[in-house]
Amino acid sequence: MRYFLHLAYEGTQYHGWQVQPNTLTVQLELERCLTQVLRQPIHVMGSGRTDSGVHASHQVAHFDAELGEGPDEATVVYRLNRALPKDIATRLLHAVPERAHARFDAEARTYEYHVRLVPDPFSVNHSLYLDRMPDVAAMNEAAACMLGSFDFTSFSKVKGGENHYVCVCYEAGWHHTPGGLMFRIRSNRFVRGMVRLVVGTLLLVGRGKLTPAEFKAILLAQSRVDAGGAAPAQGLFLSRVEYPLGLVPEAAVPVGMPYFVTR
Amino acid sequence: MRYFLHLAYEGTQYHGWQVQPNTLTVQLELERCLTQVLRQPIHVMGSGRTDSGVHASHQVAHFDAELGEGPDEATVVYRLNRALPKDIATRLLHAVPERAHARFDAEARTYEYHVRLVPDPFSVNHSLYLDRMPDVAAMNEAAACMLGSFDFTSFSKVKGGENHYVCVCYEAGWHHTPGGLMFRIRSNRFVRGMVRLVVGTLLLVGRGKLTPAEFKAILLAQSRVDAGGAAPAQGLFLSRVEYPLGLVPEAAVPVGMPYFVTR
Repeated sequence: MRYFLHLAYEGTQYHGWQVQPNTLTVQLELERCLTQVLRQPIHVMGSGRTDSGVHASHQVAHFDAELGEGPDEATVVYRLNRALPKDIATRLLHAVPERAHARFDAEARTYEYHVRLVPDPFSVNHSLYLDRMPDVAAMNEAAACMLGSFDFTSFSKVKGGENHYVCVCYEAGWHHTPGGLMFRIRSNRFVRGMVRLVVGTLLLVGRGKLTPAEFKAILLAQSRVDAGGAAPAQGLFLSRVEYPLGLVPEAAVPVGMPYFVTR
Repeated sequence: MRYFLHLAYEGTQYHGWQVQPNTLTVQLELERCLTQVLRQPIHVMGSGRTDSGVHASHQVAHFDAELGEGPDEATVVYRLNRALPKDIATRLLHAVPERAHARFDAEARTYEYHVRLVPDPFSVNHSLYLDRMPDVAAMNEAAACMLGSFDFTSFSKVKGGENHYVCVCYEAGWHHTPGGLMFRIRSNRFVRGMVRLVVGTLLLVGRGKLTPAEFKAILLAQSRVDAGGAAPAQGLFLSRVEYPLGLVPEAAVPVGMPYFVTR
């Protein structure tokens, strides 16, 4: 039987999602704990990778297992949370059709990038600190250039492995939050390093170092050369992965609030 | 000239507020950075101590310094935040009359204790996790027994140093939050370890191990023997220190929101 597991993690301690030799990753911890709780070797496939230090308030992975007469799904969630380190948590496990795929069936992914504008000792690992307010209107004008279908070579790490760099971007904009700003971008897919490079370059627009028109020219150039540096990992959250209607229970992702509530 | 400094800290890395030999404390870091920024030896006096691992979203300390023709107060705040470790932050510095005292002039202190009822990887260091909802009505009935003037010997660590154990408690109750519960207690003063012992004992009421009447009997017994264990430090925040009208600018503590905004 194939299952979808919905989870969240605080990425500070991890070298990203994907298993790599001799490093601690979220996938590694998850597979270790699932194997222990289900008493069978488990391999998971995530909806996508997150980089070292990047968080997820909603990530989805699939795996195959025979639960048989064993514990029900809610019990597995309970035991899994007891087994997992506290910086990884799961809220929901549900069966899916045999051919459902956490990565290939995902229709959209959403990332959020958090900026704090006041010194806040409680969000040091969850946001980037800026000591002055950037030009939000200019950043939003630039961000709007990405809406639609574009080749994001300019905002990719170009480490290869991707077939193409075209992403269809449904939403891209900055929002005011109580302690600062949040950039949210929703797209059918993302190329490697894309959100942090986009945010790093938008922040140059916010500081007046680039105009929105120059941002657009960088995007259209399909060349990595002129983009800004990557924004630091600690502000970035994978915040939602969306699937076709019916594949995932409606309760999985409450609309209008973060999947995992933070204080 | 005497100054009041308003600050917040994430207590996870610190052995509490007060300077002790060979340990990292908030007071130690603050004095080191103030001495560096103001270029004169600075000793600070806090409104009260916080224990190892306890946080403060609002703490106040006073110190004496000669700023003379030097930087203005906003500049000191800016430089101090650059010098301080990121888990300590200041928002406000203002002059006070020569005899104003951060500890003796404080009229009330408020503590909050945060409980999460869903596994939340982002508040691991900022709340206590409970895997089932306690009986909030019973906990609130018990908490109401503390309102007024009582001897809190039953809820003190009894390590001496206090003249008396009487506290006048103005507010004590549990509130629902998006991810769990929060206990808030406001009192003219607190004895050592009081909030964590009160919360630990209230949680026994919440699990049906004690009745509200038994909680009241424990309080009135003025004996440490029957109280529950101390709740863990990571859920506790010193959240507000109040002074007589006029001593502190109104802007220092926005009413109705936390002093430091967290995501």
